[in-house]
Amino acid sequence: MRRFAAALVHHPVVDRQGVTVTTAITNLDLHDIARSSRTYGVTDFFVVHPIAAQRELAERVREHWMTGSGSRRIPDRTPALEILRVVVSLEQAIAELGGDVELWTTSARVRPSSLSHEKARAQLESEGRPVLLVFGTGWGLAEAVHERSHAHLVPIRSAVSDGYNHLSVRAAAAILFDRLRGER
Amino acid sequence: MRRFAAALVHHPVVDRQGVTVTTAITNLDLHDIARSSRTYGVTDFFVVHPIAAQRELAERVREHWMTGSGSRRIPDRTPALEILRVVVSLEQAIAELGGDVELWTTSARVRPSSLSHEKARAQLESEGRPVLLVFGTGWGLAEAVHERSHAHLVPIRSAVSDGYNHLSVRAAAAILFDRLRGER
Repeated sequence: MRRFAAALVHHPVVDRQGVTVTTAITNLDLHDIARSSRTYGVTDFFVVHPIAAQRELAERVREHWMTGSGSRRIPDRTPALEILRVVVSLEQAIAELGGDVELWTTSARVRPSSLSHEKARAQLESEGRPVLLVFGTGWGLAEAVHERSHAHLVPIRSAVSDGYNHLSVRAAAAILFDRLRGER
Repeated sequence: MRRFAAALVHHPVVDRQGVTVTTAITNLDLHDIARSSRTYGVTDFFVVHPIAAQRELAERVREHWMTGSGSRRIPDRTPALEILRVVVSLEQAIAELGGDVELWTTSARVRPSSLSHEKARAQLESEGRPVLLVFGTGWGLAEAVHERSHAHLVPIRSAVSDGYNHLSVRAAAAILFDRLRGER
């Protein structure tokens, strides 16, 4: 069983027009994805943001649930927030995992040579380097992130005939964790 | 294929101590679960709240994405919010589905004679009455809701040895929709 970590990237991501931008942190993403991560055995949930003030915000949210009033009101959230790690870049996340990491990217679009969820699940169950599963905010990861990744996961497909597929990153992360690590 | 609707209940639900309470609406739940619902072919997403001011808030959020500035900024959300229906009670949701509805409840606890996700999936694919899948906010649906339900879905189990299992209702809904209606 390989170490399995996740990252939520706020830069570089694209906006609706495909321009590379930096998005703001959505408060709820932090504990929502941390809770899903913790439930599915994801060892580290990296929140990636290049702006110091945004990282401080994320650290404050983390502290609120770790030692602040949130930890007294809802103690169940503490073990989840424990795995949240706020970093400046994907490089820092990779370094904190030991440097030798397999990078898997996600998006809502089919890309050449995408890795099926079934194969990804089997790869996670075998031995090997840690895997870092990367999610983009905004309209998704910038091309530069996909280019350096070792694999791109097949997108979650719509179940409706009109192909509507606009899951939140919170929902997509929960579904992917379940497909890759949930009971079968 | 049966009609498949979902409801997010804010009353009657329980708090940490098991006392029946009414929770406040979390803004993000509305478009997050609406987007997951729409992607997985859920026909109606009912937001159930007994307090008029809270229903008005939900209607304002809906309008923002249907015809307000949100619909111009992120038009992809409009088809999702179209299926959101704000109601005063579960009874009203049932009535709006035609009255003859099968009620399925969810919780994080195993209950006697729970319905597996595999069987639930098969039942949804067959012919029959509409199914209304009910999610609770707070610490889950009050016992009274479970007592009147036709089936209780097996809870989503933790994938970790310590059994940590504290998914947000947004994550739980996304995972269940995927298990019941996602591609196989």
